[in-house]
Amino acid sequence: LTQKEYAIIVAGGKGTRFGTSLPKQFLELNGKPVLLHTLEAFYRYSPQIEVILVLPEDQISTWRDTAVRYSFNHELTVQSGGPSRFQSVKKGLEKIHGEGLVAIHDGVRPLVTSALIADSFRYAALHQSAICAVPLKESLRMVEDSSNSKAVDRSAFRLIQTPQTFKVSLLKNAYTAPEVADATDDATVFERAGHEIFLFDGSYDNIKITTPEDLRIAEALLRHRL
Amino acid sequence: LTQKEYAIIVAGGKGTRFGTSLPKQFLELNGKPVLLHTLEAFYRYSPQIEVILVLPEDQISTWRDTAVRYSFNHELTVQSGGPSRFQSVKKGLEKIHGEGLVAIHDGVRPLVTSALIADSFRYAALHQSAICAVPLKESLRMVEDSSNSKAVDRSAFRLIQTPQTFKVSLLKNAYTAPEVADATDDATVFERAGHEIFLFDGSYDNIKITTPEDLRIAEALLRHRL
Repeated sequence: LTQKEYAIIVAGGKGTRFGTSLPKQFLELNGKPVLLHTLEAFYRYSPQIEVILVLPEDQISTWRDTAVRYSFNHELTVQSGGPSRFQSVKKGLEKIHGEGLVAIHDGVRPLVTSALIADSFRYAALHQSAICAVPLKESLRMVEDSSNSKAVDRSAFRLIQTPQTFKVSLLKNAYTAPEVADATDDATVFERAGHEIFLFDGSYDNIKITTPEDLRIAEALLRHRL
Repeated sequence: LTQKEYAIIVAGGKGTRFGTSLPKQFLELNGKPVLLHTLEAFYRYSPQIEVILVLPEDQISTWRDTAVRYSFNHELTVQSGGPSRFQSVKKGLEKIHGEGLVAIHDGVRPLVTSALIADSFRYAALHQSAICAVPLKESLRMVEDSSNSKAVDRSAFRLIQTPQTFKVSLLKNAYTAPEVADATDDATVFERAGHEIFLFDGSYDNIKITTPEDLRIAEALLRHRL
């Protein structure tokens, strides 16, 4: 029995770190906006997936123009975001009315593959949550104060990516809790509600575009994928 | 009063993860072996720097050929490495006879800049050690066992790069201790000897080439730097 599958694509950032007025999710990557790469990855995984795209209110008209210009044909729900990522995901969740599984994914992780999305739904169906994560390649130190740090065993840590996929009702319930400042991702919100977090292997390719350099790295990675 | 400056470039890896027989430090990056980019960065910083290149015994003839083919003209000391990074650095340190400052750097971090090397020597002169480090861009979780993990505050951690620069006599002394398996870098060896570790800001560009994808990323980053 397969469950209904949803994706909430959260695209909140502005273009400030890029020195552009266009928010980074609308910048072109190999001739196509970052956000379109991201959305298309989910439709490649499943044409039936129900997508909720959460965008800042003032970017919704940019999205409409972009969809027309690039002939984006899929039906999706557009939802205006809140003042924080927490509020944005919460507003996205309100658009889901049934039970099923929901993948929360950063709009600026355009290199996510069908395989990774498939893994996230498959593991979430088994474990109620499935969080994409990779081991650290570099040594890690913990900073104790401005002048002290100590070596920690990097093998005990994972860098967390998206998609982060959950059973809808459990995640909705977790999002009824008050927002806390250090909840940097959905796994943290879910964990705070008392649920277990299941980690699965992500990919070093699945980068988040936050600087102009990241965009060039994504270009290089995409070029070799084609 | 400036101190004498040394660099130990450690290049130990093989090409296995690349599916090539040529070790990754000899693979070409924009038409020049990775290792040459790395070495040239140090000579760009200072033509007077004394460099010790530590290579596996069976790569020394490859190095000689490479130096001739690419007209590498700088004088440097070549030292055969040991069975581990710890042993290799230790053997490199034995080639330094005076006092001064020594930067230990991965042969496969070819994008290190003069500015970063300069910072490392400047801070090491003040603090006896200077370790290149960057904050984490992704959320971090600590893995407790095969099924449990918990969110940790990523702002309390740093990813550690090289160069790692030290006062020569203190580092030599630290390397007289027995090798321990979890000492993944020189900072850890130095710390174990009871010394303080000074961290300074590295760069996200200063990547370590460990996979074919890293090589493509380095190409993309270099292309935009020129």
